[in-house]
Amino acid sequence: MCKEECPYDFRLAEVVSKLKEIQARKVLVQLPNGLKKYYPILRTTLEDLEIEVFLSLSHSWGVCDLALGEAKKTMCDTILHVGHHGQVALYTLSDIKIVCSPAFYKRNPIPLATRGLKLLMAKGCKRIGLFTTAQHLNYFQELREALSEAGAKVHTTQIFPWMPGQIIGCRFDTIVSNLDRKVDAYLVVGGGIFHGLGLFVTTNKPVIIADPYSNRLIEVAEEASQILKKRLFKLMEALDKKNYAVVISTKIGQFRLALAQKIRDLLRGRGKVAELVVADEISPSLLLNIPWAQAFVIVACPRIAIDHQEEYPYPLLNPGEVKYVLRGSLEEYTPKDSLVPNLSLNNVA
Amino acid sequence: MCKEECPYDFRLAEVVSKLKEIQARKVLVQLPNGLKKYYPILRTTLEDLEIEVFLSLSHSWGVCDLALGEAKKTMCDTILHVGHHGQVALYTLSDIKIVCSPAFYKRNPIPLATRGLKLLMAKGCKRIGLFTTAQHLNYFQELREALSEAGAKVHTTQIFPWMPGQIIGCRFDTIVSNLDRKVDAYLVVGGGIFHGLGLFVTTNKPVIIADPYSNRLIEVAEEASQILKKRLFKLMEALDKKNYAVVISTKIGQFRLALAQKIRDLLRGRGKVAELVVADEISPSLLLNIPWAQAFVIVACPRIAIDHQEEYPYPLLNPGEVKYVLRGSLEEYTPKDSLVPNLSLNNVA
Repeated sequence: MCKEECPYDFRLAEVVSKLKEIQARKVLVQLPNGLKKYYPILRTTLEDLEIEVFLSLSHSWGVCDLALGEAKKTMCDTILHVGHHGQVALYTLSDIKIVCSPAFYKRNPIPLATRGLKLLMAKGCKRIGLFTTAQHLNYFQELREALSEAGAKVHTTQIFPWMPGQIIGCRFDTIVSNLDRKVDAYLVVGGGIFHGLGLFVTTNKPVIIADPYSNRLIEVAEEASQILKKRLFKLMEALDKKNYAVVISTKIGQFRLALAQKIRDLLRGRGKVAELVVADEISPSLLLNIPWAQAFVIVACPRIAIDHQEEYPYPLLNPGEVKYVLRGSLEEYTPKDSLVPNLSLNNVA
Repeated sequence: MCKEECPYDFRLAEVVSKLKEIQARKVLVQLPNGLKKYYPILRTTLEDLEIEVFLSLSHSWGVCDLALGEAKKTMCDTILHVGHHGQVALYTLSDIKIVCSPAFYKRNPIPLATRGLKLLMAKGCKRIGLFTTAQHLNYFQELREALSEAGAKVHTTQIFPWMPGQIIGCRFDTIVSNLDRKVDAYLVVGGGIFHGLGLFVTTNKPVIIADPYSNRLIEVAEEASQILKKRLFKLMEALDKKNYAVVISTKIGQFRLALAQKIRDLLRGRGKVAELVVADEISPSLLLNIPWAQAFVIVACPRIAIDHQEEYPYPLLNPGEVKYVLRGSLEEYTPKDSLVPNLSLNNVA
């Protein structure tokens, strides 16, 4: 496959320029699983610079999941981390240089998003919070203007400084605190329900997803309500369990040891049995090996508990939900608690 | 579950003594998946010493798979690595202390092994190579004597210095070079076909497994022949493939970067496309993400290709088999090649 046939734009010219600038010699490439099939394009480009290239075969969930261990073992000087960042950028982390590159999806999402806006306006929502995932940021300014011309008052914000409008799978608290009072509804351009669900859970406002891959509009409320009902049921189950495992991931941006220790101690203080367990990639098959735990607190990516609960035999809790176990009651629970990244221990004696 | 009910003996008194001696404060426990259910026994013992305990949730395939990364992240001073070592022993690796502990299976395997010996003697095999996996080494001397009394001439050897008679899943070359000419057949005490298959592949002599878990005798030849036929078929497929991935594992005892690079270069020299890919745990679901590779050389645990080929959509080769791809022919192939840990490039121009 040549560059022109690939549906993604990896900003190769800018990547090459950065790699030359830092004189990269050995590069570990990270791609999300769905994009690993395009690796030969990147490999060819890098080998043309006389760089030795390795592909990380592991998952690559986000910038939280930099493969530093693999890069160190293979003695790479640089990681090329693709698909989770809104622009080509350079960072340095523990002596390894990180070149981030976006994977911009080439299909123009504006006609689809404009149809999505009409659905929201038909519900009386004119003040729109607009976001796209990293893959569609290349269209963001154009999209914003098109929606404004179509009659919307468009607002957005930024979780990280590099690019307004980019939404990621966690950290919705930032959006809520600064933006939510200004808007009636949200429009998200991105594949699948993942990012829109996070917004809905956090804001409880109408969210429409314009999915450029399926060319489909998704109203999040209904599907979300199913997920959240099941979630509430699992949390209720958790209250009765005695034996907890607090699960730590070693991934660089998901590792929160002190929080895990605090949660273990609080659970033990309430008469629970609570153990600390550690892995890089958390999966159902790993948790099945510890039948002595009947409930899990995931101190890692908060999306595991929300999106993947059904794959696990026992309840998964996020840190923001632990207070309900400590209280022994789900009273006043809101789905927003599931995405709170800390203990939120107000009102817990 | 109390210690007495557990079917394994973890040599806890010796472990405690070692941990006290090194003044361990924070310990990461590694257990193979099947033994993780007994973790509470270890945890209780360690917490009684006022040690903070973490369980590694990851696979633990052998001493080749020490969870140094997890131990460093959680700031543990010690790893307690259970179930792959014939005695309690202490090592130090990159500032982390490794306390190895066996997991001795309590059931006496001697009656079953004696029945296995009778089967071999009925075939005219009197000179027996005797091995057990780490789980049954506690019975090894007694077993050896019982078989000698039953009329066998028993030989054994040792792959690592610590305990004669221990068999592991790789490194059968040592056994072949020193022992094979002295024996007519092998008797292996251990669960499943895994270790006996390695012996059979390497020696092509009768191998009987006495499996204390199922209380069953297994003659390896027939099951092995099925596995090996399928293997040969897959290798033949590999000869026609153009696009190779050379798969490196970052596991401490499975990491062979220079060998992987050499294999990549040799394959490229024969007109193949060959890429280096890296992961910690190699799995079918990871390889499925790189459809541009149609054959894989596994420069990691040699058992993945032998025992798990069926789970993978494309042929897996071990380093000792690469010469056949370079030659473009399977002529003179023997299953032993599959367990040769290096390139064995004799007769490759």
